[in-house]
Amino acid sequence: MLKTTDPRTGVSAATTIEPTTPAGVDALAGRAATAAHELQSRGREFRAQLLDAMADAVEAARDELVATADAETGLGVARLTGESGRSAFQFRLFAEAVREGGFVEAAIDHAGDTPLGPGPDVRRMLVSIGPVAVFGSSNFPFAFSVLGGDVASAIAAGSPVIVKAHGSHLLTSKRSFEVLQSAAEAVGAPRGTFGIVYGQAAGVELVKHPAIKAAGFTGSLGAAEALQKAIDTREEPIPFFGELSSINPLVVSPGAADARGGAIAEGLFTSYTGSAGQLCTKPGIAFVPAGASGQAIVDALAGLTAGAAPQVLLNDRIQGSFGDIEERLKAAGAVEVAQGTAVPDAGAGFSVSPTLLETSAANLGAELAEECFGPLIVVARYDSLEQVAEAFGRIPRSLTATLHVQDEETDVIAELAPSLEASAGRIVFNGYPTGVRVTWAQQHGGPWPSTNSQHTSVGVTAVRRFLRPLAWQNAPQSALPEELRDQYTAIPRRIDGVLVLAG
Amino acid sequence: MLKTTDPRTGVSAATTIEPTTPAGVDALAGRAATAAHELQSRGREFRAQLLDAMADAVEAARDELVATADAETGLGVARLTGESGRSAFQFRLFAEAVREGGFVEAAIDHAGDTPLGPGPDVRRMLVSIGPVAVFGSSNFPFAFSVLGGDVASAIAAGSPVIVKAHGSHLLTSKRSFEVLQSAAEAVGAPRGTFGIVYGQAAGVELVKHPAIKAAGFTGSLGAAEALQKAIDTREEPIPFFGELSSINPLVVSPGAADARGGAIAEGLFTSYTGSAGQLCTKPGIAFVPAGASGQAIVDALAGLTAGAAPQVLLNDRIQGSFGDIEERLKAAGAVEVAQGTAVPDAGAGFSVSPTLLETSAANLGAELAEECFGPLIVVARYDSLEQVAEAFGRIPRSLTATLHVQDEETDVIAELAPSLEASAGRIVFNGYPTGVRVTWAQQHGGPWPSTNSQHTSVGVTAVRRFLRPLAWQNAPQSALPEELRDQYTAIPRRIDGVLVLAG
Repeated sequence: MLKTTDPRTGVSAATTIEPTTPAGVDALAGRAATAAHELQSRGREFRAQLLDAMADAVEAARDELVATADAETGLGVARLTGESGRSAFQFRLFAEAVREGGFVEAAIDHAGDTPLGPGPDVRRMLVSIGPVAVFGSSNFPFAFSVLGGDVASAIAAGSPVIVKAHGSHLLTSKRSFEVLQSAAEAVGAPRGTFGIVYGQAAGVELVKHPAIKAAGFTGSLGAAEALQKAIDTREEPIPFFGELSSINPLVVSPGAADARGGAIAEGLFTSYTGSAGQLCTKPGIAFVPAGASGQAIVDALAGLTAGAAPQVLLNDRIQGSFGDIEERLKAAGAVEVAQGTAVPDAGAGFSVSPTLLETSAANLGAELAEECFGPLIVVARYDSLEQVAEAFGRIPRSLTATLHVQDEETDVIAELAPSLEASAGRIVFNGYPTGVRVTWAQQHGGPWPSTNSQHTSVGVTAVRRFLRPLAWQNAPQSALPEELRDQYTAIPRRIDGVLVLAG
Repeated sequence: MLKTTDPRTGVSAATTIEPTTPAGVDALAGRAATAAHELQSRGREFRAQLLDAMADAVEAARDELVATADAETGLGVARLTGESGRSAFQFRLFAEAVREGGFVEAAIDHAGDTPLGPGPDVRRMLVSIGPVAVFGSSNFPFAFSVLGGDVASAIAAGSPVIVKAHGSHLLTSKRSFEVLQSAAEAVGAPRGTFGIVYGQAAGVELVKHPAIKAAGFTGSLGAAEALQKAIDTREEPIPFFGELSSINPLVVSPGAADARGGAIAEGLFTSYTGSAGQLCTKPGIAFVPAGASGQAIVDALAGLTAGAAPQVLLNDRIQGSFGDIEERLKAAGAVEVAQGTAVPDAGAGFSVSPTLLETSAANLGAELAEECFGPLIVVARYDSLEQVAEAFGRIPRSLTATLHVQDEETDVIAELAPSLEASAGRIVFNGYPTGVRVTWAQQHGGPWPSTNSQHTSVGVTAVRRFLRPLAWQNAPQSALPEELRDQYTAIPRRIDGVLVLAG
């Protein structure tokens, strides 16, 4: 039996969720394989309607979902209400993208003479890769879980999806799955379009199943490694898209420290403690200049940190890691500058105190850049931009890199741009990396070890992960998908090399 | 010392090419890493000029390249002249694509209110992934080697490229590399834009080098497995794009057999013996109806095969495999229908006789669907389309699947379409899979084991393999690449979700 636990008290409830058996995984995967062809054949408009129905269903069940998730995660009603809105928004955005149709990358090259002789008619578009496995995250019970972006992008691609529920919010996952099923029923989706499995062993069985053709994952490097090992035992390799680990360096330029150090300290405090610091984009290292302006930032950040109440983490494992990593960072030379009010001895569940550590940029290396999932930040004081650039070369690369800089400091931007671009998938100017806008141009992914692929897991282009290209040569019109027929003009297409907008 | 061998005689020449040492690989990779940033910063127009210069340089050196390659491969002057033209054409096509700029997928989402609150300005495009390793193929000394599509697409992406020369055409590779260097000099490309290594050990060192960020490969499953193992020892995983293995089933419908069996037999003969059958798209299995019309096809194919002269294979390993696989296919139940004229006892180098085998579709499984690199085809006689569809489920999936069918046989297309779509990356109607048009809509890649990724290695979209997405949030205009600045309108961009053509 799998347990659900209230992180605010640490008390586990006896709950009714059983781990999925291997036979159960096999049955779900088989149904997904059957659904895959049916889903693809119903065309894009059906998938858009399904995504819209998913959004409607999330909204209809919102209060109940939020209450269930709050009890399991301690993330709070305000944050969770916002997150459920994000789930609904994501489903609608993908519905819009599916209707717009550019993501199928339709291309037609007519038969004709070429410099290499007569060429046949060739037409190409992206089609579903087949059933997808999705591993829900601990820290986003909605937006990166059963009701999350991986599920949205899989459905947009036309891929049935089986989610592995995260152990930290089993009841939320179960209720979320019922929401998906109600949407499937509302539009008459093929049986097997959605599935869910519980328990780590079932997750491993899932990625090993021959019917599964891709996997999306948000979680730790260690868990990803275990899944990759399971995938490596398959006869047929499948793509495994993992969002893994990120230290998210943030640099405050000398000019920015002078001009607006107080505001930056406040922003940084909010960013590193939001959601109890349990965000993959939490700034884990802040480069702050040596000297008075920099010291003022550290002092302000210390004051805010010292006054902060304990925060509840998602589970005991994360709580345990928080303490372990804090110890390791101190052993590696980081000095404690401030810590929030102490956690009471009893009845505080998985709480920890926000923590501010300091080191020098010259000392910063991989040991001082270990990601700590929770409200902890390391300030690295620097004497020169060269020190910052060099430190970027010694710390792991990230999802994001942030620069606070004044408009007139063009030399600072020029000096740091190569480091920022090489070390991250998203570069933030004069803001904070937490808060990932769900949109067409978003990129949530970066160089290893932040992700293990060239793709994003947030925003419209996330759909690309679950598609494969298919070309038809000299096909009769009736054998082509409608998107590639001569008369179809409802989507942008590249015709004989020329991009043509929808008519 | 590495040897070059004349496949027409089997005689090796003492040659002067030394295997690249680990230190040599390290030096090349280091130079490529330095060149990577420089190449990206010069912008798209520079890369287009470099690609044009590469095309010019190939054409200028054509006769010498062809003569060198003919001596090393035995592929013949006509085929090799055509292939060198294909190399030049590919370089020019990628230059055109680089200038057109749609492949960078530029997208801008302006700051503004959203249903989830105020959203920041987010801009995204694809940038070079960094230095790329390319493994040349045995069977295309130009178009899939040093002067090949992987090199073209890497340069289009802005990625420096180091090629591992194939052991079957070392001198051609060396001369080809000089051609690339002359193009680099003509336009003043950064030192380190191109590199070449010789020897298998150097290839392994290359994919293990931290500076290498992706690899492209065309070759056997076994060689790919060895490289993947080397890549798996890296701290940072990198994408490995392999084009591996393909049986390329071809189906002749009952109607097509009745209407044009003679022409199909001739086309099939040309397709399976072209380039001595050493094409990754060679049809390895032909489904032909039982009964008289099907028998007429087999008889015609047998006649053509029996009259065919021996063909020279590329090297002794391929020659040895040809015999071994022929033996295994016969042991698995395939019956020899015809074989070309006998190979002389002496002085024939790596020659083999074209071979036609036959089995029944009901018997066809993985054992009878082993890819044989060389002029060999297995005809599988079928009693029903259901038998064909079932056999598709038992044989490995491929780069291509081909259907010869009459216009009026819409039921045949409907019945076989799911099998064709599931089993290949390109579906050919009423033609032959050999001959891969280099164009915008091409897809050369398919489900495992034909390739190990979702990407193509032929055609413009091959560039996608060597790119990674990068997003900028609230960036000042001067910190953005020109493609993402407000006033830039020279390429198609997606602005606030709406695709806008170049202005």
